[in-house]
Amino acid sequence: MTLPLAVSMGDPAGIGPEIIAKAWAARHAHRLPPFVAVGDVRAITRVWAGPVRPITDLAEVSTVFDQALPVLTIEDAGDIVPGVPDAEGARCALHSLEMAAGLVKSGAAQALVTGPVSKAQLYAIGFTHPGQTEFVAERCGIARENAVMMLAGPSLRVVPITTHVPLAEVSALLDIELIVAKARATARGLTRNFGIEAPRLAFAGFNPHAGEGGAIGREEIDILEPAIAMLRDEGIDATGPFAADTMFHPRARAGYDVALCCYHDQALIPIKTLHFDEGVNMTLGLPIVRTSPDHGTAFGIAGRDQAEPGAMIAAIAMAGEAAERRSRDAQAG
Amino acid sequence: MTLPLAVSMGDPAGIGPEIIAKAWAARHAHRLPPFVAVGDVRAITRVWAGPVRPITDLAEVSTVFDQALPVLTIEDAGDIVPGVPDAEGARCALHSLEMAAGLVKSGAAQALVTGPVSKAQLYAIGFTHPGQTEFVAERCGIARENAVMMLAGPSLRVVPITTHVPLAEVSALLDIELIVAKARATARGLTRNFGIEAPRLAFAGFNPHAGEGGAIGREEIDILEPAIAMLRDEGIDATGPFAADTMFHPRARAGYDVALCCYHDQALIPIKTLHFDEGVNMTLGLPIVRTSPDHGTAFGIAGRDQAEPGAMIAAIAMAGEAAERRSRDAQAG
Repeated sequence: MTLPLAVSMGDPAGIGPEIIAKAWAARHAHRLPPFVAVGDVRAITRVWAGPVRPITDLAEVSTVFDQALPVLTIEDAGDIVPGVPDAEGARCALHSLEMAAGLVKSGAAQALVTGPVSKAQLYAIGFTHPGQTEFVAERCGIARENAVMMLAGPSLRVVPITTHVPLAEVSALLDIELIVAKARATARGLTRNFGIEAPRLAFAGFNPHAGEGGAIGREEIDILEPAIAMLRDEGIDATGPFAADTMFHPRARAGYDVALCCYHDQALIPIKTLHFDEGVNMTLGLPIVRTSPDHGTAFGIAGRDQAEPGAMIAAIAMAGEAAERRSRDAQAG
Repeated sequence: MTLPLAVSMGDPAGIGPEIIAKAWAARHAHRLPPFVAVGDVRAITRVWAGPVRPITDLAEVSTVFDQALPVLTIEDAGDIVPGVPDAEGARCALHSLEMAAGLVKSGAAQALVTGPVSKAQLYAIGFTHPGQTEFVAERCGIARENAVMMLAGPSLRVVPITTHVPLAEVSALLDIELIVAKARATARGLTRNFGIEAPRLAFAGFNPHAGEGGAIGREEIDILEPAIAMLRDEGIDATGPFAADTMFHPRARAGYDVALCCYHDQALIPIKTLHFDEGVNMTLGLPIVRTSPDHGTAFGIAGRDQAEPGAMIAAIAMAGEAAERRSRDAQAG
């Protein structure tokens, strides 16, 4: 029997509940695997008129899923007002993340998809992780630096080597060890989750024109080139560093499976320029499969039936395919 | 009588001659204005079998242009081997740039389009400007900092506030005065060259998520916000700073006429991701109109009939339209 996916609702006042419901409504068109929404059922019924079925046991999902969206209510989210986040909602978001991750870890669900949360709201109730990725990594017993955030759309995958740090500090944070660790986890993750046997990793340079041989900065010579050489010695198909601005047009993208970028915007500008409504955030390096739609809570449009479910649909589909592959490969030996 | 455009050939061993010839061949389909290629006629005949007419006076262009590509040979480029640049070719490239700029400045041609040059080859023969933009600015008596490089494609215009400098130095280079000067020249240039009466300028933040209110860097608060406030006080429609990664998808692009970016890759990644084969580099802030295709010499494919003329065609069309507009506006008032 195929296990369901566990989808945490994210902040109940954001668009999470709506896009999960819309994803369920699109289950046939996108051939989505069975999933259960984890959170407070009222967050969904408040913004969506379609069929919903509260469940208490994940074994019910397989029979329910064809007729109604199965929902596991694990916490009363209080008086939910779409677009108006509060502490009760944030607690519900955190506990549904915790529960959904636990269901996957324990083997009751086959993959984790996380809905969008408000970091500000979570911080206000005492959440101390930078984001959901680090929280999930910790719950899986994986060190943060070994959990890799990859963003994926239909024609591009990117990994930012550094993320939410001031740009002026990135040069000092980049080091060979960090780059090699992220690249190894990336290569392994592409094999495990996507079945790419020898993933092609292309590195973006840090400076304009990848430094032009040292004329415009030395991070390429001092850090990126030695890291790439080390990866090649290990048999990983790593190339670059390339001028970042010429890496993302269609012909260039055909030459690699993932682009490793030095900083947040270098990775996120191209993926969001190309795939704004369908970008998926997948965490590599975990014992479980975890994805999320690559967008925020969008409080400004919550409850108005305006949210686009494309990224949530893509996140569920990608998680389902990766989990199937991992399960097949595990059985194969 | 409409004056012709002057198109410098760029490095004769690069793809410049070929794409100019192909642009001429596409003159009807793209309704291109009459232009003359400036350089060495043999650079064209060596790579192209179509009709070419050497001329000595720009008055000949209007009668020649319909039947053949008019070429003004101003220097013997030596023994041209496509793909193999040398010093004679670099001298020819420099002198054709000089001549073409002079023809426009003197009023014999209505706009300047520059073919791709090799900076390394130019530096080797003693060229001391960072690039063609600064050379043309100096010839026009304009200080470098007031000449603004804008890159434009069919659905996006971007201005990098800093260009070919190490990324780690950008934070120290950004200051309010520089940003305001670039923004003023940009706003004025969009009005003069494109007829946009009140151009909408959107600024990209420097840090991830535009610094999240100071949590991820302070350049937004200390530099960008005061500069934007100053511009707004002057009546310029400046907004931001915005999170750079969410500025370049189609809905976001509809909200502004030009994106001002803090550094090279922040501007060039989105434009080249979207418009790699049709990007135009236009210099704003000059008394003359100057454009160029936003790509290099491509020595690797020179002489093989593989070069795409799309960006050269777009550069000629954009220069012709801007020159027409400026000429009409000058006559009107």
